[in-house]
Amino acid sequence: MIGASGYTGAELLRILAFHPEIEVVSSAAASHAGQRIAELYPSLLPRYEGEIFSNAESIIDDISTGAKNVDIAFLALPHGTSQSVVPRILDKVGLVVDLSADFRLSDPKVYREWYGHDHIAPQFLEKAVYGLPELTREELKGARLVAAAGCYVTCSTLALHPLVAAGLIERESIIVDAASGVSGAGRSLKSNYLFTEVEENFSAYGLKYHRHTPEIERNLGAQVLFTPHLLPVNRGILATTYSRPTEYFRDQIIGGDVDKLGSELILAEMTRAYASEPFVFATESPPSVKATLGSNNAMVYGTYDSRTKTVVTVSALDNLVKGASGQAVQCANIALGLPETTGLASLGLHP
Amino acid sequence: MIGASGYTGAELLRILAFHPEIEVVSSAAASHAGQRIAELYPSLLPRYEGEIFSNAESIIDDISTGAKNVDIAFLALPHGTSQSVVPRILDKVGLVVDLSADFRLSDPKVYREWYGHDHIAPQFLEKAVYGLPELTREELKGARLVAAAGCYVTCSTLALHPLVAAGLIERESIIVDAASGVSGAGRSLKSNYLFTEVEENFSAYGLKYHRHTPEIERNLGAQVLFTPHLLPVNRGILATTYSRPTEYFRDQIIGGDVDKLGSELILAEMTRAYASEPFVFATESPPSVKATLGSNNAMVYGTYDSRTKTVVTVSALDNLVKGASGQAVQCANIALGLPETTGLASLGLHP
Amino acid sequence: MIGASGYTGAELLRILAFHPEIEVVSSAAASHAGQRIAELYPSLLPRYEGEIFSNAESIIDDISTGAKNVDIAFLALPHGTSQSVVPRILDKVGLVVDLSADFRLSDPKVYREWYGHDHIAPQFLEKAVYGLPELTREELKGARLVAAAGCYVTCSTLALHPLVAAGLIERESIIVDAASGVSGAGRSLKSNYLFTEVEENFSAYGLKYHRHTPEIERNLGAQVLFTPHLLPVNRGILATTYSRPTEYFRDQIIGGDVDKLGSELILAEMTRAYASEPFVFATESPPSVKATLGSNNAMVYGTYDSRTKTVVTVSALDNLVKGASGQAVQCANIALGLPETTGLASLGLHP
Amino acid sequence: MIGASGYTGAELLRILAFHPEIEVVSSAAASHAGQRIAELYPSLLPRYEGEIFSNAESIIDDISTGAKNVDIAFLALPHGTSQSVVPRILDKVGLVVDLSADFRLSDPKVYREWYGHDHIAPQFLEKAVYGLPELTREELKGARLVAAAGCYVTCSTLALHPLVAAGLIERESIIVDAASGVSGAGRSLKSNYLFTEVEENFSAYGLKYHRHTPEIERNLGAQVLFTPHLLPVNRGILATTYSRPTEYFRDQIIGGDVDKLGSELILAEMTRAYASEPFVFATESPPSVKATLGSNNAMVYGTYDSRTKTVVTVSALDNLVKGASGQAVQCANIALGLPETTGLASLGLHP
Repeated sequence: MIGASGYTGAELLRILAFHPEIEVVSSAAASHAGQRIAELYPSLLPRYEGEIFSNAESIIDDISTGAKNVDIAFLALPHGTSQSVVPRILDKVGLVVDLSADFRLSDPKVYREWYGHDHIAPQFLEKAVYGLPELTREELKGARLVAAAGCYVTCSTLALHPLVAAGLIERESIIVDAASGVSGAGRSLKSNYLFTEVEENFSAYGLKYHRHTPEIERNLGAQVLFTPHLLPVNRGILATTYSRPTEYFRDQIIGGDVDKLGSELILAEMTRAYASEPFVFATESPPSVKATLGSNNAMVYGTYDSRTKTVVTVSALDNLVKGASGQAVQCANIALGLPETTGLASLGLHP
Repeated sequence: MIGASGYTGAELLRILAFHPEIEVVSSAAASHAGQRIAELYPSLLPRYEGEIFSNAESIIDDISTGAKNVDIAFLALPHGTSQSVVPRILDKVGLVVDLSADFRLSDPKVYREWYGHDHIAPQFLEKAVYGLPELTREELKGARLVAAAGCYVTCSTLALHPLVAAGLIERESIIVDAASGVSGAGRSLKSNYLFTEVEENFSAYGLKYHRHTPEIERNLGAQVLFTPHLLPVNRGILATTYSRPTEYFRDQIIGGDVDKLGSELILAEMTRAYASEPFVFATESPPSVKATLGSNNAMVYGTYDSRTKTVVTVSALDNLVKGASGQAVQCANIALGLPETTGLASLGLHP
Repeated sequence: MIGASGYTGAELLRILAFHPEIEVVSSAAASHAGQRIAELYPSLLPRYEGEIFSNAESIIDDISTGAKNVDIAFLALPHGTSQSVVPRILDKVGLVVDLSADFRLSDPKVYREWYGHDHIAPQFLEKAVYGLPELTREELKGARLVAAAGCYVTCSTLALHPLVAAGLIERESIIVDAASGVSGAGRSLKSNYLFTEVEENFSAYGLKYHRHTPEIERNLGAQVLFTPHLLPVNRGILATTYSRPTEYFRDQIIGGDVDKLGSELILAEMTRAYASEPFVFATESPPSVKATLGSNNAMVYGTYDSRTKTVVTVSALDNLVKGASGQAVQCANIALGLPETTGLASLGLHP
Repeated sequence: MIGASGYTGAELLRILAFHPEIEVVSSAAASHAGQRIAELYPSLLPRYEGEIFSNAESIIDDISTGAKNVDIAFLALPHGTSQSVVPRILDKVGLVVDLSADFRLSDPKVYREWYGHDHIAPQFLEKAVYGLPELTREELKGARLVAAAGCYVTCSTLALHPLVAAGLIERESIIVDAASGVSGAGRSLKSNYLFTEVEENFSAYGLKYHRHTPEIERNLGAQVLFTPHLLPVNRGILATTYSRPTEYFRDQIIGGDVDKLGSELILAEMTRAYASEPFVFATESPPSVKATLGSNNAMVYGTYDSRTKTVVTVSALDNLVKGASGQAVQCANIALGLPETTGLASLGLHP
């Protein structure tokens, strides 16, 4: 694992500690190399007592030169860093799972447009398989480079994709209004993320131009306005979306209680889409982020408001698990041909 | 004051403790009559030591029979209760300020439609002056029955009203996605509001049919879809709204950086609308709820996204102050001809 | 399981959902009988979809009459209730694990003294094995009635017991100053536990006479003054204790840096005591409650202040896991002869 | 004001904004010089719109050269900084109120012992008047250099001083177990204070050697072991103390319900001590930190446990107000001969 000292790295360590088929042979970090894992993350002490973060640059070197052999490399690096690492190690490692946004967009032009600079390794963009099992399970089987989908994107996509795919909502003017726990920003030392700035607070940020927008749009094949908010919780993403029903949708619910019929149609479609998914659940009432805390589960809900002719969905997941490290392990399980839930079966903590 | 033992009542006691022109002569409560104020609200001890909540029913009786004379009655009662109290006391009191939703809608039919039952005292609906000083200051002067605007409604209306009034946004399909601190639910003993259910949680509720919807719609003269969320904070409301620009708006920002021009136009209109307001501020970046904590201040912000042709606003206030008790005192000040900021001048606590 | 609808019950359901040797055949509740489990606890939906809470009284009846056979009964009932249930079912069930305080004190007189009333089933008090594996592992093997130790008590006992047992601290005047997350109060609908009363708050309660005092005293064979505090977190207990060094202790650290020598002696004793324990860890710096969140792990630390001649310990655990449901499962594993960590191996969530 | 960009500085700006006798003529900061006040603290916008933080070094220069005349200088600087500033400006300013710990200890040797280095300006130590009005009101009148007492110290001292002074508790082996909200650490950018590290957490720190220990000891004339904890709240300090009753105390409560008599004696002494204090209140049950939020009020409580022969006190205040900026303003009011409560009269926010 490279980038083990951030929150997604620590979450990988937590999950993999009890994964029966994957053994962590190296926990490499940049800023904390040499430090004891349990000093930075006391919660990991019971399984990582005495272990230290190794030096990320050395590990990358050793892998690239063949001095070190690993079967899988999880990259839990800051966005923008993986694109310089993947070209060096991809040939030497059976499977690279990247948790960053670096390989999620396949079109270098779109990447440039939203990130403001050219991608360093554009030739790898189309080699990467997008890691959202509910959409790309088949491509993930045997994949060698996986770009695991991120938290906001997974949460929004899981709610909206079945409705777009079934032709129930228009592909224009979709609004995604979402809120994330602070761990979504990683362990970045910025004053915005101090307890005193976040506690008893709530605010919108990144209006109009948040970089995850094109990823949601690509997944849905639709135009999306995305507004994230910062929530005073450690973990959890809730996405509330607003979209227009198609003519097809409205034709199907003529007569009677249109709100009820429309809502049933939406729930039926969501239920059908995720019937055999181990980690996604269509619920009969709007889910809360707490329902997924610490688990790889995601929950989706939708309803129809005939008065304003709007489809509303609400979806929830834990940004560090289904939105990051759990998703990465799920993708790895699929790529490696393991049972998909290996090491991931758990329920959310309540309270 | 009647209904003094709930959160809006206690907040009135907090504000009025240092109001130079209004003296609290009676703090009446239903469920806590006979209990010491400082036992329920230790924070009030320094000014209300030894005082007890008197019996609400007795006080109402005494006022209605003339046994007790008061100049002002603040009603901080549960929704649905004021409509049985106002008819009994309005003739005997110089000014009644009702903090509930009972007299906010002037049309009994709209009331019935959203509340599911007939109003008990419909003849008083048109006598009531709606208490949102930024919109109804003139009517408030000398008013005898004030229906103070509520928290979600004030927050949304302050952001959107200038834009609707200036013809910048369409009057259809406005989406208000808002989040409130838990005190918005009052001191209700429901398991949903237990610490363990709210902490580290975030959820949507009251989808499509929340009763404050018609009040926002009436204020704006527009159709609104309103989705509230429950935020794990004590106080604070943040409203994020989405609306369509009018042709008029789009005509004004042709050429150049349309996003920038549009955003400037919105900010200019908000700034103009509130230039002389003592408690509302147009800000250059999206406000956070924390910016208003404990104060009667509200902050509004807006921007334009030309890509999706959407106007986004963000606004914030403290639901117990500008969204309830502070607003009530501001209305009372106006109605009584006092300087409007009397007893209300303060800044938000940070952190 | 009886009492499944409270927080310790729900936590048992969470843990047992993936326990390979224990299957939940019945989730009985008093107040929520007939309700869907996933409605009350959406986090449990992925494993308990469609299941409902059965009627506690009926299940107890069925077990007592032999109409229903179960191998294990977990009682997650309010304190005071188990003592009326155990006499009815103990003969019919292989193992009863009681999570309440009802059978933790073996002396009916001490029970009466601290609880203010007689125990209903005093003849069972001495049959019960106290469920704190680190102290009573041998007695637990093959036990038929286990009184699992509670949260404050486990946290305090684990820190202090090695020091008392090794003769390092005096058995008088031990101060236990502890703080608990709100889930320690269960799902009780009291206004004290409303979010708005707990958030941004901290307070002491139950001074001098808290009922867990005699349980700590019995475990240690020492006199203890115990002061609990209510912490604005969902889960977690931190105990800070103050005690006097014995002459024996002070004799061992003569010369040199007495603080350092004393602290090393304490840490060595704690380390030795828990060297082979799967869930208790002596740490080199004071643990935080977060280090144990969601896991069955406990952490203990101690240090010596020669200036004031005081031994200070700090210990932490998750009150719902090692302080309740995890402990109960650990005890059941031992009683049943299963590997002790079955179903319990995990690491704390961070953040 | 110098050091205006930290939390105590911002709190001073908040309080002084409505102080009728003190006008903020300059808000100087080191790290944020040139930045708009309202950008860093949006809550201050309504009164400080358009104002910027001036350069601290320049202001100090201007004052020391006489280029700028100010009547009062509030120093809200990091600990260790004031001692280099005071010598430069004290002659030129009518009153310097220092909020740091730099001038709180009068003995340079004690300073050296606990801070590990020599004081830069020891000759000013004895000129400084310690700013805890309840103890030093007379000395504060007309003072020119005030070292305002800090948060932990004020909270502990207010609870214990009346009992020590009345000879009720022994002057040895007093334990102060306290917890502080995160703002006590200022706006320091350390990973310990990230939301994700503090939220849902609780931990002890600075065991045995916390630098505020000698200040408490000096105030009480007693030996104290002080253990601070980090509380997941923005503001607030709660101190729980444990001490031994004197023979004198025990002689006074012979016969009857000793616990009750002892507790009444303690409460009577506290009540007597603070009877004429505007901001300190003896309460009949243990206060919570929330009771003081945002106000300059402090609350103290005490009780006696005859079983373990221990006096327990609990006290609470807002660390940024009575524990810092409010205290500084209260001291300034006294020093300047203004009514002591000027600009400070308010009640805590609840919830």
